[in-house]
Amino acid sequence: MRYIDEVAIEKIALGAAVLGTGGGGDPYIGKLMAKEAIRKYGPVRLITIDELEDDQLVVPVSGMGAPTVTIEKIPSEHEMTAALEALEKVIGRKVDVVMPIEIGGINSLFPIIAAAKKGLTMLDADAMGRAFPEAQMVTFHLDGYQPSPVTMADEKGNTVVLYPRDGVWAERLARVLTIEMGGSSSVCDYSMLGKQIKTSVIPDTLTLAERIGDYLLDPQLKEQARINKMLEELRGYRLFEGKIVDIERGLNSGFTRGIAKFEGIREDYGKTFTIYFQNEHLVAKEEEKLLCTTPDLITVLDTETGYPITTERMKYGARVAVVAFPCHEKWRTPKGIETAGPRYFGYHFDYIPVEELQKER
Amino acid sequence: MRYIDEVAIEKIALGAAVLGTGGGGDPYIGKLMAKEAIRKYGPVRLITIDELEDDQLVVPVSGMGAPTVTIEKIPSEHEMTAALEALEKVIGRKVDVVMPIEIGGINSLFPIIAAAKKGLTMLDADAMGRAFPEAQMVTFHLDGYQPSPVTMADEKGNTVVLYPRDGVWAERLARVLTIEMGGSSSVCDYSMLGKQIKTSVIPDTLTLAERIGDYLLDPQLKEQARINKMLEELRGYRLFEGKIVDIERGLNSGFTRGIAKFEGIREDYGKTFTIYFQNEHLVAKEEEKLLCTTPDLITVLDTETGYPITTERMKYGARVAVVAFPCHEKWRTPKGIETAGPRYFGYHFDYIPVEELQKER
Repeated sequence: MRYIDEVAIEKIALGAAVLGTGGGGDPYIGKLMAKEAIRKYGPVRLITIDELEDDQLVVPVSGMGAPTVTIEKIPSEHEMTAALEALEKVIGRKVDVVMPIEIGGINSLFPIIAAAKKGLTMLDADAMGRAFPEAQMVTFHLDGYQPSPVTMADEKGNTVVLYPRDGVWAERLARVLTIEMGGSSSVCDYSMLGKQIKTSVIPDTLTLAERIGDYLLDPQLKEQARINKMLEELRGYRLFEGKIVDIERGLNSGFTRGIAKFEGIREDYGKTFTIYFQNEHLVAKEEEKLLCTTPDLITVLDTETGYPITTERMKYGARVAVVAFPCHEKWRTPKGIETAGPRYFGYHFDYIPVEELQKER
Repeated sequence: MRYIDEVAIEKIALGAAVLGTGGGGDPYIGKLMAKEAIRKYGPVRLITIDELEDDQLVVPVSGMGAPTVTIEKIPSEHEMTAALEALEKVIGRKVDVVMPIEIGGINSLFPIIAAAKKGLTMLDADAMGRAFPEAQMVTFHLDGYQPSPVTMADEKGNTVVLYPRDGVWAERLARVLTIEMGGSSSVCDYSMLGKQIKTSVIPDTLTLAERIGDYLLDPQLKEQARINKMLEELRGYRLFEGKIVDIERGLNSGFTRGIAKFEGIREDYGKTFTIYFQNEHLVAKEEEKLLCTTPDLITVLDTETGYPITTERMKYGARVAVVAFPCHEKWRTPKGIETAGPRYFGYHFDYIPVEELQKER
């Protein structure tokens, strides 16, 4: 057990932006909100899954919506706890512990804000080990758990309780509601007792994000050394370094979808590269050669600072280093690949682990 | 108190198609389902608002969706009662009485099916006195009542509970869910206690529909005499008789929207006419001259049979008599006109009561 303070928030925000693979919402806004919440309500208690009791009720709290919207429509404190309060009402008991559904961008900080405000404990774990664009892309879904009841709230005062047939219907119904609510909402789904949830989550990911933040903020190291330390920790690879020469980005069906094109800036790394994204980076290619594909992680870093850049912050002319990490083993099972592999997103090729793709290289 | 039997269903279906002003879903399918439900579960008890007790819980049950969809996607019995059962769960008590939210098309019969299956009493009243396309177009909304909690269900096994900020948000959220659910859903909203509901509903409209059906099915009368009797009962007008020469109809944002053009077939009634509709008929014109506008009722009748034709059954070449009736006085208040008058639907003219328009003629 330990406490999350303002310094930890700074690091977690940075690390979660790395693990968020471009998505999960703008970590800058989440960071400011989380720090303010801690100043106002005090540090948040963080426990590991080993410290979680079997009969404690654990609730993942998250924001839904395209990152493009979150930048301009900052979630309110009310919105963040309204879904949680609706859940307590529906199931008729108090929530004991909250957790992030994904360790990416604003969604890793969202539950910290809710925990601070409600005086709840936070679990050091998430259900993706990264960020993914759709609600059923969680280890709970892979393990056969149902999301129901799903509670949702917006800043206008609307609250919704969904009892969807399964995780895919939860995503479909919650997505159209989120769009109608103005593009963002807060969501609680897959609430479970401690004994169930501890078998399904990816543990210690908040601490992992914090450690990554620690490396990237280390004043003793230069940018390249910071990145190298992070790559070592995450068993990652440098895919390429390049300059953004073209960026197409559109908001459709509630997602930010797009393509970014890069010109190589180092002789040893090739000439032209492309990244495809849907909220999160999904596929990286050098010419037609696959470099890395979902569910493995692709992260774009600013070469100046070594800090990650989200999909909606990528700008023409920016110089970036693109890195990749292997995903958690749960995503490499047949169900994991079916749920979040390249074919699910409409690409006509199979998943190949990033280690194999890099070995060929 | 009396019982609704199969004969009554036959008449109610026909009368509700008249009051449905082209919308409310196909009454033929509703009729078959309601008759089957009565055969299976027995006649349904019908009470007037005077027989309603103050502490009885009354729940409007309806189907949401574009009529175009309902024709091809027949609602299941499960779907019809699932929203009702969800409501009982949410508010923690049994429903005593059901009622139609609108007296139009399938929606006047929908609660009869639910009542038969669940052994509930039915209230002889509705909240529109006709059919309207949007969920907030109910007397409850005019009287300041809130729709919350709104329960919804589909045939796939999804259930949703909405706590919307107001009636307009209930419509917005329920509509996008209905579209995502495949175009149709069952809904319970504005559930209230007897003492509240009896001050807000439009009473005796099921009996009115039955009486209209009685006239239109009268074997002693010819078609024209049947129509005349109905016009007398409803203080209505013949707007024109014509042949459908053009019909545009599209499904968008969950509604069937379109325009029907007619060529006059009687010298004394003018030459060209147009009807604009959104699920229901909204505006009738002769050339550019307004003949009748929402919230007053516009109904298209087959000249051969005297029976009403719904918007989705209107076909090129059909010969029709178009009639109009004044709406209930609640729709003629400033709030009523703001909620369902021509400007709400995007027309750039004010509401003029059909009596005045016809006097000018």
